[in-house]
Amino acid sequence: MREYRVNEQGHLVFGGCDTVELAREYGTPLYAVDEGYIVERCREIRNTFTDKYLNTRAAFASKALQTLDVIRIVTREGMYLDTVSGGEIYAALKAGTDPSKILFHGNNKTEGEILYAVRNNIGRFVVDNEYELDMLEKACSELGRVQKIQLRITPGVDSHTHSKINTGRLDSKFGISLEPENRDRIIRKAMKSEHLDLMGFHFHVGSQLQSNEDHLMALEILLDLVREVRGNLGLEVKELNLGGGFGVRYVDGEEDTRVSDFTEPMMDAIRAFCVEEKMAMPVIYIEPGRWVVANAGITLYTVGSIKEIPGMKTYVAVDGGMPDNPRYILYEAEYEAVVANKAGLPADKTVSIVGKCCESGDIVVEQTNLTGKVESGDVLCVFTTGAYNYTMASNYNRLPRPAMVLLREGEHRLSVRRETWEDLVAREL
Amino acid sequence: MREYRVNEQGHLVFGGCDTVELAREYGTPLYAVDEGYIVERCREIRNTFTDKYLNTRAAFASKALQTLDVIRIVTREGMYLDTVSGGEIYAALKAGTDPSKILFHGNNKTEGEILYAVRNNIGRFVVDNEYELDMLEKACSELGRVQKIQLRITPGVDSHTHSKINTGRLDSKFGISLEPENRDRIIRKAMKSEHLDLMGFHFHVGSQLQSNEDHLMALEILLDLVREVRGNLGLEVKELNLGGGFGVRYVDGEEDTRVSDFTEPMMDAIRAFCVEEKMAMPVIYIEPGRWVVANAGITLYTVGSIKEIPGMKTYVAVDGGMPDNPRYILYEAEYEAVVANKAGLPADKTVSIVGKCCESGDIVVEQTNLTGKVESGDVLCVFTTGAYNYTMASNYNRLPRPAMVLLREGEHRLSVRRETWEDLVAREL
Repeated sequence: MREYRVNEQGHLVFGGCDTVELAREYGTPLYAVDEGYIVERCREIRNTFTDKYLNTRAAFASKALQTLDVIRIVTREGMYLDTVSGGEIYAALKAGTDPSKILFHGNNKTEGEILYAVRNNIGRFVVDNEYELDMLEKACSELGRVQKIQLRITPGVDSHTHSKINTGRLDSKFGISLEPENRDRIIRKAMKSEHLDLMGFHFHVGSQLQSNEDHLMALEILLDLVREVRGNLGLEVKELNLGGGFGVRYVDGEEDTRVSDFTEPMMDAIRAFCVEEKMAMPVIYIEPGRWVVANAGITLYTVGSIKEIPGMKTYVAVDGGMPDNPRYILYEAEYEAVVANKAGLPADKTVSIVGKCCESGDIVVEQTNLTGKVESGDVLCVFTTGAYNYTMASNYNRLPRPAMVLLREGEHRLSVRRETWEDLVAREL
Repeated sequence: MREYRVNEQGHLVFGGCDTVELAREYGTPLYAVDEGYIVERCREIRNTFTDKYLNTRAAFASKALQTLDVIRIVTREGMYLDTVSGGEIYAALKAGTDPSKILFHGNNKTEGEILYAVRNNIGRFVVDNEYELDMLEKACSELGRVQKIQLRITPGVDSHTHSKINTGRLDSKFGISLEPENRDRIIRKAMKSEHLDLMGFHFHVGSQLQSNEDHLMALEILLDLVREVRGNLGLEVKELNLGGGFGVRYVDGEEDTRVSDFTEPMMDAIRAFCVEEKMAMPVIYIEPGRWVVANAGITLYTVGSIKEIPGMKTYVAVDGGMPDNPRYILYEAEYEAVVANKAGLPADKTVSIVGKCCESGDIVVEQTNLTGKVESGDVLCVFTTGAYNYTMASNYNRLPRPAMVLLREGEHRLSVRRETWEDLVAREL
């Protein structure tokens, strides 16, 4: 179990704030995000990567947690922004992001999204496939623009993670396969276009990785590609984008990796390669998402009904569930939890924390030890909900999505207001 | 593969409408719901259940598809409404539903929801547990009301369906376990209360069931309970609620069950029981949801990028995905699909239909035969998306939720407007 701060009242402290007070003031379920933690993570990236090496960029994979506030925090801390849809670009621009620092990803960008992104001078398209390349060329030609692009390749590495978030293997909807004829045709087309400026290549091997093995294998494949296209096609490779996927600690047994665990050996390999190839060092991008925000977030719930099935299980039901955190039902994701108002007490018993949805799979934490004797009315905290909770939330069972409060060194303010029942029918005519 | 109508242009016809025209007029992704089909299903329920037997009620489990329009259609057709949250009750009332015809379910109703439902004279609380019973008693006492209730029991039947939607087994967060001391204490408490009127019992064995086996087993357990509580506690049981779970056909090999497959043998058993026990026939409720709406709905997408991995797989990417239909990533649910603008052509090849999210698990139909040669720009129809698509949708990757159009005999009108990028940041301060 993780360490956490407890104040004199025996309440869990997070981001310097009494979480029981937060629950009282803002209501539950409540997402609480510690700005201080996000800033720390951004600074670790600066210290160990972007400030350490020349010509490096770290782009926050904003699909992990995209709010206007979070965008402002990470970009203020020097991050670029990785976006995956017109909607994410819209929000990035609304938050005041410099468009030249936005990367646009996605396996199936629509024509409308492409036009929107080009018109708004988005820094890089990470082009996923030839269909997109053709559409983008046409859009830029019509708009009289030159768009800088990176090509996403499929390195064919079978990453060591959950199959649903394993994106770099050969059988993947993402990226350009490295079969030479296919690859060269697409690269040549990009090189020939007057409206596209091919800066280099991108890969992403998967999510929540505990070791750098897959990254290093993918990098080897990428560098082989660079060698070949420089030689065969005369392409000057100016940028390499190594993606994200750096794992964090959710529960015991998982590592909170360091970005440098991944970047250092990759930077070493790239530098050695460039020396050998007599090539200028390209600009290197990484794209951490979960790594920056997962442990910046907690969710606070109020405990409702408790059902003890003698000799079997105790169900502790909270006032949220799969609509605000679908990661258990999607991936059987594990979490740690604590009774926030009894955080100083020793673990009492093993329970299952479930939600209030009419669905058996509506589980928040399958089996966990809770501190104190959990009772109806208690405030329950689930840790490590900063990534892929807010952004994946639904209104299943017409449950309004929670509010989000932003914390910093004991200060707190509302960042996203709670959804209302009125909001839920607003689009119904 | 199912049969479907194709018009002279070779376009798929649904609800009397040319689906290619619908896609053009309303844009994609688009939920299209055939009012005519819903009406037919409601009428089948009337013909084979509510009109056939005295004192029977069918409540639409609205979590399957709750829009103001759908609520109005099913209630106009004589259905009661099964709701699972304050938000669903709010929408039901907004749609003009007679509150006495609303049932309120849920394993963890909050105090606020309970007060809201009592104040609004909701017909029945389906009380899930003792904690709720106590809160409800207190709320009714404060408001000076008498609330009619049914008690949800856990029959302990392990239903033959996906474990995530299997709700009636002993190890379940739902309902009151039948361990005699536990059960009798709760029933006695309900009987004693001046503010609660215990009408009877409810069970729900699971979802998407292809046979009536589990219902009949659960009914046997329920009738044993009725016998015992009449004898031991002197409770007059006026209502029995047999839940829903009646399966529909998604793909070949699944049965589109008839409601009567479930209700006839159950009604026979209940009548025989009442004769034997010299007891008045109770009012019988059923709660179909998916059965009413699943095949009333289709989703129309536009095909974007197509990625062929020689010797492996062809990925056909559409402009939606797991945000508008999370059922593959949640349950590996299967669907049938057709190229709407080439619906008259024979099946061409097996493809995987995937979405546009940055997630490998973002699959719509894993492997399916598509008619015609599918090309970028085609309109793709996925069948049987009427249930648990709109209600489970998210904004993952900041994708706006689709519009919904309501069809009837060739007429069409917008029922839910498409979400906008502006909507997606509206709650962010």
